[in-house]
Amino acid sequence: MMKIDPPKLKKTALSKIEEIVGLHNLSFSHIDRLNYSRDSNFKSALQNHYNKTECFPDIIVWPQTTEQVQKLVKVAVRHQIPIIPYGGGSGVCGGTLPIYGGMIIDLKKMNRILKVDTQNMLVEAECGILQKVFEDELNRRGFTLGHTPSSILCASLGGCLAARSAGQQSTKYGKIEDMIYDFEVVTGTGEIIRTRNINNISGLDLNQMFVGSEGTLGIITKARLKMYPLPEATLFEGFKFPNMETAIDAIRRILQSGIKPSVVRLYDSLDTLILLSSKHGDSKMKWPGFFKPVSDELKNFGLRLGLKVPSLFQVASRVANAGCLVVFLWEGNKRVVTEEQKISSSIALGLGGQSLGEEPGKFWLQNRYHVSYKASKLFTAGAFTDTIEIAATWDKLHTLYKKMISALKGSVFVMAHLSHVYSDGGSLYFTFVAPMKGLRRSERLYDKVWGKALTTCQKYGGVISHHHGIGRLKAKYMPDEWGEGASLFRALKKTYDPLGIMNPGKLYGDKKDKKKAA
Amino acid sequence: MMKIDPPKLKKTALSKIEEIVGLHNLSFSHIDRLNYSRDSNFKSALQNHYNKTECFPDIIVWPQTTEQVQKLVKVAVRHQIPIIPYGGGSGVCGGTLPIYGGMIIDLKKMNRILKVDTQNMLVEAECGILQKVFEDELNRRGFTLGHTPSSILCASLGGCLAARSAGQQSTKYGKIEDMIYDFEVVTGTGEIIRTRNINNISGLDLNQMFVGSEGTLGIITKARLKMYPLPEATLFEGFKFPNMETAIDAIRRILQSGIKPSVVRLYDSLDTLILLSSKHGDSKMKWPGFFKPVSDELKNFGLRLGLKVPSLFQVASRVANAGCLVVFLWEGNKRVVTEEQKISSSIALGLGGQSLGEEPGKFWLQNRYHVSYKASKLFTAGAFTDTIEIAATWDKLHTLYKKMISALKGSVFVMAHLSHVYSDGGSLYFTFVAPMKGLRRSERLYDKVWGKALTTCQKYGGVISHHHGIGRLKAKYMPDEWGEGASLFRALKKTYDPLGIMNPGKLYGDKKDKKKAA
Repeated sequence: MMKIDPPKLKKTALSKIEEIVGLHNLSFSHIDRLNYSRDSNFKSALQNHYNKTECFPDIIVWPQTTEQVQKLVKVAVRHQIPIIPYGGGSGVCGGTLPIYGGMIIDLKKMNRILKVDTQNMLVEAECGILQKVFEDELNRRGFTLGHTPSSILCASLGGCLAARSAGQQSTKYGKIEDMIYDFEVVTGTGEIIRTRNINNISGLDLNQMFVGSEGTLGIITKARLKMYPLPEATLFEGFKFPNMETAIDAIRRILQSGIKPSVVRLYDSLDTLILLSSKHGDSKMKWPGFFKPVSDELKNFGLRLGLKVPSLFQVASRVANAGCLVVFLWEGNKRVVTEEQKISSSIALGLGGQSLGEEPGKFWLQNRYHVSYKASKLFTAGAFTDTIEIAATWDKLHTLYKKMISALKGSVFVMAHLSHVYSDGGSLYFTFVAPMKGLRRSERLYDKVWGKALTTCQKYGGVISHHHGIGRLKAKYMPDEWGEGASLFRALKKTYDPLGIMNPGKLYGDKKDKKKAA
Repeated sequence: MMKIDPPKLKKTALSKIEEIVGLHNLSFSHIDRLNYSRDSNFKSALQNHYNKTECFPDIIVWPQTTEQVQKLVKVAVRHQIPIIPYGGGSGVCGGTLPIYGGMIIDLKKMNRILKVDTQNMLVEAECGILQKVFEDELNRRGFTLGHTPSSILCASLGGCLAARSAGQQSTKYGKIEDMIYDFEVVTGTGEIIRTRNINNISGLDLNQMFVGSEGTLGIITKARLKMYPLPEATLFEGFKFPNMETAIDAIRRILQSGIKPSVVRLYDSLDTLILLSSKHGDSKMKWPGFFKPVSDELKNFGLRLGLKVPSLFQVASRVANAGCLVVFLWEGNKRVVTEEQKISSSIALGLGGQSLGEEPGKFWLQNRYHVSYKASKLFTAGAFTDTIEIAATWDKLHTLYKKMISALKGSVFVMAHLSHVYSDGGSLYFTFVAPMKGLRRSERLYDKVWGKALTTCQKYGGVISHHHGIGRLKAKYMPDEWGEGASLFRALKKTYDPLGIMNPGKLYGDKKDKKKAA
């Protein structure tokens, strides 16, 4: 096990913290500090794997009430201790890495559903609740949040709010920032702010100020969200399109006709191939053309070969000419969605789509949370994987797709899908796989891929995040991303976190970035 | 004509302003200063009428470019001149009253549509454009903003953004804050900020920071908004309900079933009576029961009587037992809205509604911009009128309706409708009419009515504005309304308007309020 420097915490601070949460709600043990030294960000996992973790929290605390959170912040203010708010640790951008040490405030013990208000269709919960537990409980009562991120099994409500999460059904229900009614937040000065719905309605909208702030301004402790009745019907239809361009065009036209399917996913030919070759569950999905699912042996052989010469995959997918799979789900009132499906379908068919019936959608629904948990299998097989999600308006999506694939395909095996679409644009989601070659070389490759991806994204007018957030990973790109808007961040920091103790180094470039760049 | 003190402007400032916009784009003439001393706020009109206007701008300027706006702000910064951004002057809350004098920056000459982007369904315009001109031009090309406030004939885009406007179709299309893609703003320090769509997608949302700021942080000069194709079909159905409570319940259930009509309006029995007794256009609206439209003579007699004993109206409406009219419009794809109408209708019928067919909806559509321009007729007839719009969650709406009517009905003739409904609640809109009794007594009555209305609203959990904004009128209620959230306003002021020159005294209580309270 890795050697860790002893925690840097003054005795007075420690005894105060103990007084607030009690001995069994805090830890500075070796194993806990190691556990909380990483989140689902790949680079932190990689360093962890090689016993080269760079930063550790000094202490982890599990408060049980907002008042305890407030007191903890006040201790941190007095002793200038960095605070890292923590939920499920499911963030992939390093938003919870304790890069300056400090105190992890883990909200997992604040996980109650406080009120299911059926008259106003609002539900209030503490922010440490896991999204799956939250959604399951609402489903049991006949409701849904309409918020089902791929990370639902391990993401907390607070984390989703902090990073502007989008569920797979965001086309219909919106992103989490569209779902908020009001909330409670403990700022970096120890003030408890209870936003009111007034903020949505007149004057300034305080809700929108803390959403997406990734713990740099405060800790969101409770939130009230909109909820919906479980849909009466869910309809499915898949289509095969000859290529990305025609599929993007068809999806755009469907969205702009005013129809909001709940789910839209377009897989590029390589992603389609991979999807077709998997055999989850008892899918009966049939694919027009010569392509057939392949054996595990063949797949493993393909992976090993592809990792050596990544661009082979792009060639293979062109040869296989599998085309691009599009999956649609519509949900809501049965009679309404029946019409919505008919209209969407007729647009898709008119623009070169070939209907695949219900199967692809049902297959997707069955497996929708599986794909995020394949990283460790690949890791064991000697490879690593990560995902890059960007967003753009419709006019830029196809160019961005081509430019980003072409920027990355020489270095890694890369595929993409389009999802989370809206009338004005959507999100491209790239998955790359690379061979593991020891810590330093893998880190270099990882940094190179991310650098190429995000600079290409910015060059061609995309935005560098749609729903994974910024965290540590993308912080250094934010000055370019926000431009003059950075003054807002500085203004809010000055007010809500004048000492700079709230999740330092996240969301916006800081001195550590400069050191690395130099 | 009223005597006005000469403008307080240093020669150096004046010659600088002239250098920026040119002589014919500025004025400090008596008549212009008088014109811009009021907006559509009733109290300012009243004072104007009695030649007792309290405050005048020192100068009015009509810049033509963002760069001119920026230079004007910099002159104002150097000479500490208050700035009042001005669009159509349609605001009813006194948001453009020059209570500390200063410079009116009227954007009316910045009124171009810059780009109609059909691929991304976005449209960019300068903020001085009038909403009617904007919407008509989009309609001509086959599109709509889905934003049609009652004030559309005289409201500017910038004003709508500044005050969180809602169009009559907000149930379907959202409020203006939901329509923004990005914009350009000149802050109170003379910085030009161009927000990027990034702000909607990752990190902090700068768009949402300036929307609703009512000119207290900066001047929004250009904006890009979402647009939609003109609907293929618009369907109408009206219902008679026995009372407000059952109607509110039916509307709530329709909205919470997931259906979004474009327009929903519920008139209380008195508002229904007034509506039925009007004879705009060639309406063929039939009303079940004994009530029949009355002659103009009878109406005028009723008005004179009612103004003497306001509560008579409430009694009359109870006796007439007209019931409550509900108007629905659904718009979009024909096949989809046909189903939506059927479902809505069946819910309404099941909960005590009686169908009135298409006529009430068509009648409403024909007359939807007329009602706002009746104030001057009443004024001539020796009465004054104003409207109070509040919002609340569903559970509070009926209580708020009863409590606010009962708080006001002793002093004025008051009626209400519910509109702008969402899954979590909606907006109550009170119209009151009072006899004109000279300046001071009318002012006192006006202040008393507003005071009673807003304190009752706050007491029973409503919010004091849905789409008219705060302005000067409601500023003193904001400390209670925002609570701890006020720190956000202070933080933003410190950054974007450190000298406090941007529309001083608006949106939040200031020293003038304290003086009056004392």
